[in-house]
Amino acid sequence: MQFLLEVVEILTNYVRKTFDRSTKVLDFHHPHQLLEGMEGFNLELSDQPESLEQILVDCRDTLKYGVRTGHPRFFNQLSTGLDIVGLVGEWLTSTANTNMFTYEIAPVFVLMEQLTLKKMREIVGWPEGEGDGIFSPGGAISNMYSVMIARYKYFPEVKTKGMAAAPRLVLFTSEHSHYSIKKASAALGFGTENLILLKTDERGRVIPADLEAKVIEGYVPMFVNATAGTTVYGAFDPINEIADICEKYNMWLHVDGAWGGGLLMSRKHRHKLNGVERANSVTWNPHKMMGVPLQCSAILVRERGLLQGCNSMCAGYLFQQDKQYDVAYDTGDKAIQCGRHVDIFKFWLMWKAKVGILRRFLSALITNVVPIFSYQPQHTNVCFWYLPPSLRGLPDGEERRERLHKVAPKIKAMMMESGTTMVGYQPQGEKVNFFRMVISNPAATRSDIDFLIEEIERFGNDL
Amino acid sequence: MQFLLEVVEILTNYVRKTFDRSTKVLDFHHPHQLLEGMEGFNLELSDQPESLEQILVDCRDTLKYGVRTGHPRFFNQLSTGLDIVGLVGEWLTSTANTNMFTYEIAPVFVLMEQLTLKKMREIVGWPEGEGDGIFSPGGAISNMYSVMIARYKYFPEVKTKGMAAAPRLVLFTSEHSHYSIKKASAALGFGTENLILLKTDERGRVIPADLEAKVIEGYVPMFVNATAGTTVYGAFDPINEIADICEKYNMWLHVDGAWGGGLLMSRKHRHKLNGVERANSVTWNPHKMMGVPLQCSAILVRERGLLQGCNSMCAGYLFQQDKQYDVAYDTGDKAIQCGRHVDIFKFWLMWKAKVGILRRFLSALITNVVPIFSYQPQHTNVCFWYLPPSLRGLPDGEERRERLHKVAPKIKAMMMESGTTMVGYQPQGEKVNFFRMVISNPAATRSDIDFLIEEIERFGNDL
Repeated sequence: MQFLLEVVEILTNYVRKTFDRSTKVLDFHHPHQLLEGMEGFNLELSDQPESLEQILVDCRDTLKYGVRTGHPRFFNQLSTGLDIVGLVGEWLTSTANTNMFTYEIAPVFVLMEQLTLKKMREIVGWPEGEGDGIFSPGGAISNMYSVMIARYKYFPEVKTKGMAAAPRLVLFTSEHSHYSIKKASAALGFGTENLILLKTDERGRVIPADLEAKVIEGYVPMFVNATAGTTVYGAFDPINEIADICEKYNMWLHVDGAWGGGLLMSRKHRHKLNGVERANSVTWNPHKMMGVPLQCSAILVRERGLLQGCNSMCAGYLFQQDKQYDVAYDTGDKAIQCGRHVDIFKFWLMWKAKVGILRRFLSALITNVVPIFSYQPQHTNVCFWYLPPSLRGLPDGEERRERLHKVAPKIKAMMMESGTTMVGYQPQGEKVNFFRMVISNPAATRSDIDFLIEEIERFGNDL
Repeated sequence: MQFLLEVVEILTNYVRKTFDRSTKVLDFHHPHQLLEGMEGFNLELSDQPESLEQILVDCRDTLKYGVRTGHPRFFNQLSTGLDIVGLVGEWLTSTANTNMFTYEIAPVFVLMEQLTLKKMREIVGWPEGEGDGIFSPGGAISNMYSVMIARYKYFPEVKTKGMAAAPRLVLFTSEHSHYSIKKASAALGFGTENLILLKTDERGRVIPADLEAKVIEGYVPMFVNATAGTTVYGAFDPINEIADICEKYNMWLHVDGAWGGGLLMSRKHRHKLNGVERANSVTWNPHKMMGVPLQCSAILVRERGLLQGCNSMCAGYLFQQDKQYDVAYDTGDKAIQCGRHVDIFKFWLMWKAKVGILRRFLSALITNVVPIFSYQPQHTNVCFWYLPPSLRGLPDGEERRERLHKVAPKIKAMMMESGTTMVGYQPQGEKVNFFRMVISNPAATRSDIDFLIEEIERFGNDL
């Protein structure tokens, strides 16, 4: 127990320093450097057990050479921040060390999951008492569930007979949507060529007319994914217009709100998801916009029974029907997993502690971020190029494009070496590499955003 | 930070009590009782935030009404125990709160995963330097990976063209195997009817001749799952004999060692998995036999490149190829997930701290458990009926079977109400409900096993 408390000391120090701006975001080393053993930090496994003192050193080193994703100047991913209530929730979860498959061994967590999913469905806007859902290991798996459930709804015999029991099916998603829809189409046996990419407007939103044009082109249209908050631009597809087309052609409408779903909590900004209540399923990751520790992702389904029907295999050793309690609470057979990590408690606890703060934070974030940038982003993704002085005089053309393409990676590399801040970059379609700053960390202030911009200028000035 | 330390106090008390045999394993209540709010424990979410004091009370209540899966008298699941080093590893993981997809934001964890997977492949017996693998959210997903990778190996065009690009494929697994193989065959588009169940001998092991007979019956045989440690009996399929047939008919051999894989660590008992080095892929869950906290499951693949080829979608915003470090360490595109929880650190830390103990524990467990029981179980699953005195005089027949079928559920219900111990039960094939005790908790002693038997007699005596 002494050992446990010594680790707690290490961890609380880490947390304190994470919020201290004089601490670096990371202490970068190349893989080969870490593998060679930095200052005695030996990652290799041997058959010689180490002393508990050495284990404590290992814990310190693991944190030292890692990345502080909760640091106010970490703008690199959609999941940032380090919420203390959420953290405590995760510590309790690991201490309880149980499994979501049955009420028998996770009574409290199973009920928390049910009540929270119910609340989330109400916020989506589905009629009270309807619907279903489950927490899954991340948004990609949640999106995969949506495709599976849609297939089960239209072609239930695929479960037993395989894809041969269905005609050639096509799925639709935007060219800006998350790659998990593509992963799902490959994994589930549709094939990525049967996932049709939809054109977007200049702000990254699906053009509904393109969907309708492609629906009538051939094969059987089954599923449409509309994204609420795309990964790069933070774009919101026009759900109502897409829903009209889905209804007309009898297609499943899924809304991937992994990133933007959090806005449903904000009265002021939820209009960006107008029409979401018409969706058949919704992905919503509290571990992104709502700052819940990793992982916490929900797939919500409007029609009850499909999740169970699609996935249940009635394993006799786990889901006995002759238990003394109401076995409707044994929710494990709805999952494609068997054992399932408890992802609900940290979210439930954060909701209990700070639902009001969460709602206000989400509203304030959008309200304050958007006006900073002249191009009016739709969400808290802010995308921009940095043009070094040497490029400013160049005319638009191939040479400028090629040189600009190399700017963001170079700045990012210097930034990581110096360890002061972190931000992502990528190309998109015709656009060469540009920065994508993500603002979702409650600890980040206006001055941290300014700091990032200054750092980009500092590193990029001489390029 | 004071709040954090108060929660630590609650958690350390919980841990202490878990190992105290005078503490109950659980304090059972029905779902409706917990939902009505036990002694003020309100599970409902409202829009009114609670005080931090109330949050502490919620934490205490959550633990109070939960199940102590680390208690020495908890024999209910394959995952039991509460290892302090593993627990500390999980606390650190949640504090670091990062994501496995790129080296960029998880340098240390990504390297730990690589080194650990390499070590595991060496223990399986594959040639050094070959192979691949990934940690996944549980054995069911690991098994699903194996089917996906096999399909990619034989019919890579399914990734782009869907199942229509392949002939009618069949998969094989034992009638005693885990239901996740069935879930995978449904999800991936094969259909459960194309999963052929193989007959087993009286100890639950696949009869290889039955595999060969079924292989030549029709359709294209692609994949065979051999189980190392079945869920109920703990049976080990004869891998070498199955491998011979797989080689003869060019089928993928997967070994599901989710439960029994831990025996590979024991020089004395690893012979039960003889032939495992001939497998194309292996599932191995350190969160089961090795006592690592939930979740920790690995899928190991003998041929390098398949995992990447099967799943990669090259998302430009995450897996940029123009980074300053060796991007071969960005392993995220091998996964069907996008974000991936850090499951490696707790396992790595436990290995560092106690690999010798783990090896000896696993050996000793089998060596000591098996002789207790006259029927010589193959693993630490111990299956038995309890025959109440009232049934002992009855002749074998329908009446006896029907009454015996009800005994285990009744005893289990009384056991849960009293909270003193927990053990699982299930029917299997022709066999009516029997108990399955699982011994994998290092804290459990011979006297705890005796205690369970005495409790079963106490509750069952008058049935």
